[in-house]
Amino acid sequence: MADDRPGEFELIRTYFAPLAKDPGSLGLTDDAAVLSPRPGYDLVLTKDVLASGVHFFAHDAPEAIAAKALRVNLSDLAAKGARPRGYLLGLALPSDWTANWLGRFCSGLTADQSAYNVQLLGGDTIRSGSGLQISITAIGEAEAGKTVRRSGANAGDLVFVSGTIGDAAAGLKARLDHSFCGNASLDGAEERHILDRYLLPRPRTALSGLLTRYATAAMDVSDGLFADCSHMARASGVGFEIEMSSVPISSALQRMKETVPDVFAQCLNGGDDYEILASVPSAVASEFAEKAAESGCPVTAIGVVTSSAGKVKLIENGRPMKLESGSGFRHF
Amino acid sequence: MADDRPGEFELIRTYFAPLAKDPGSLGLTDDAAVLSPRPGYDLVLTKDVLASGVHFFAHDAPEAIAAKALRVNLSDLAAKGARPRGYLLGLALPSDWTANWLGRFCSGLTADQSAYNVQLLGGDTIRSGSGLQISITAIGEAEAGKTVRRSGANAGDLVFVSGTIGDAAAGLKARLDHSFCGNASLDGAEERHILDRYLLPRPRTALSGLLTRYATAAMDVSDGLFADCSHMARASGVGFEIEMSSVPISSALQRMKETVPDVFAQCLNGGDDYEILASVPSAVASEFAEKAAESGCPVTAIGVVTSSAGKVKLIENGRPMKLESGSGFRHF
Repeated sequence: MADDRPGEFELIRTYFAPLAKDPGSLGLTDDAAVLSPRPGYDLVLTKDVLASGVHFFAHDAPEAIAAKALRVNLSDLAAKGARPRGYLLGLALPSDWTANWLGRFCSGLTADQSAYNVQLLGGDTIRSGSGLQISITAIGEAEAGKTVRRSGANAGDLVFVSGTIGDAAAGLKARLDHSFCGNASLDGAEERHILDRYLLPRPRTALSGLLTRYATAAMDVSDGLFADCSHMARASGVGFEIEMSSVPISSALQRMKETVPDVFAQCLNGGDDYEILASVPSAVASEFAEKAAESGCPVTAIGVVTSSAGKVKLIENGRPMKLESGSGFRHF
Repeated sequence: MADDRPGEFELIRTYFAPLAKDPGSLGLTDDAAVLSPRPGYDLVLTKDVLASGVHFFAHDAPEAIAAKALRVNLSDLAAKGARPRGYLLGLALPSDWTANWLGRFCSGLTADQSAYNVQLLGGDTIRSGSGLQISITAIGEAEAGKTVRRSGANAGDLVFVSGTIGDAAAGLKARLDHSFCGNASLDGAEERHILDRYLLPRPRTALSGLLTRYATAAMDVSDGLFADCSHMARASGVGFEIEMSSVPISSALQRMKETVPDVFAQCLNGGDDYEILASVPSAVASEFAEKAAESGCPVTAIGVVTSSAGKVKLIENGRPMKLESGSGFRHF
């Protein structure tokens, strides 16, 4: 390199080795990580790639970019009933990276490693041809044979969603249009709420054990609530009937429903929620909801599973409502 | 999307699902893959990121790009004594990707999956901000507790290398300078040999079992033979004494040694060899070499492990030779 910034080996020593305390990482001094699930557990692996300008803004705080890249993967693990264990980090750095930027990026990882009890196991750093790209493979553990899939929903199950829906999509709109919050009459707290929900997903790791115990199917909501309902319905060979007025929304979205109803409707299926969508047999539904509330991640029943294979029916004020085709956020 | 090329779900169905026959992939219809090592085995995980213009040329055959991205990971697994089992594919496609290009890319994966007995387990596809980037996490199995590390070399061990060294670096030079082969007086077969060795690494998977059985330390040679000797010596707290005349070279490199000796010396430490570097106790060294030859991956003893911690000494015609600092290929 023509400059005096560290090469890959110094980079590993300085920035990444402190993140790798799991013995399986071999201290990042080797070419691979070694891992086995605890007896009675399977490993669950997921991979998400994030690119500057697609999944985050290049000038977002490096800590937040790091957190988002890790959290979208932890969200997948949580939805599968898996507890996070470790991750491999693929980092393609733009040519203008600085030591300060990378230090802050790693601080973001450090904080989340501690918050989610997960360790760096390995990875690779390259010089990107252009913007920053982050590829994370996260590895979790689920009880052997009990990974929660998309495909197990049964007619008669109740459909649950965690948290609130639509905030992240509204936050993205606010990032792209500075007059958005004013037009929607959002107050300062509401504005901060939606911006934060876009910037920092909250993987619902506290629900993973309950999903293993109660859910017949689950996934995280990343493409949009109704788009992901369709995915789960198709995978399960069932239909979903969703009561729109039951979909949990924040006060910010409640305000948007009044001030900008069309935009509100878009945001409900806007994606990037990283909440859990799950089907639960009706006999244990209230028990599931109680335990979820106790865990600090409340869930809300928003509909029922039907036998109409692949059909997602939205009900508003007792009347069927048509979902525009092609809605939902496409990360690709 | 404004065009009629398939979205991510059609992409998975059309191109990637046929590559995912392992039950753990859940047919790529879910958010994660499920995997457990067979009893008595550990999982070994490695991740390499490749970018257009850094690790391959954008106009290389898509089949070859796919093969290289997978093989550099399989090479890491082989060096750790692990048999490949599956991989996750992170693909950042440039905006001008075509169905034909992607079909050929997947053909390359199909062929290598069959050649190396490995299956696609999961992944993610995004639109790249610029050029193609490929991030692969490969997963192998090694006998429990017997993953071969970089750090086990002992003074007195012999140092072995598989195949021949320097061909890929010469191939890269030939790609960058069309007068290279003429200047070096390489004939057509030699030219094809070095170009092929740059384009398509040959992961030495046939050696993985022998490394578990005989090697005290091993790694693959990707940064350059002497650079990687230094890495292994440092990790093991030993020194290496390498006899230059013993380093196995192809007839193309033999010719370059005569015609362009300075360039030849650069190529010997040029990187991208993806051969195995291993230390083996002298008592079993000849047995290791015999079995390796039987496996179809011959190995050559090129030196000995010494007690001079971290020192790599090169001997040429009985005289110590100084290695220029900063040599070796930096992928970052």
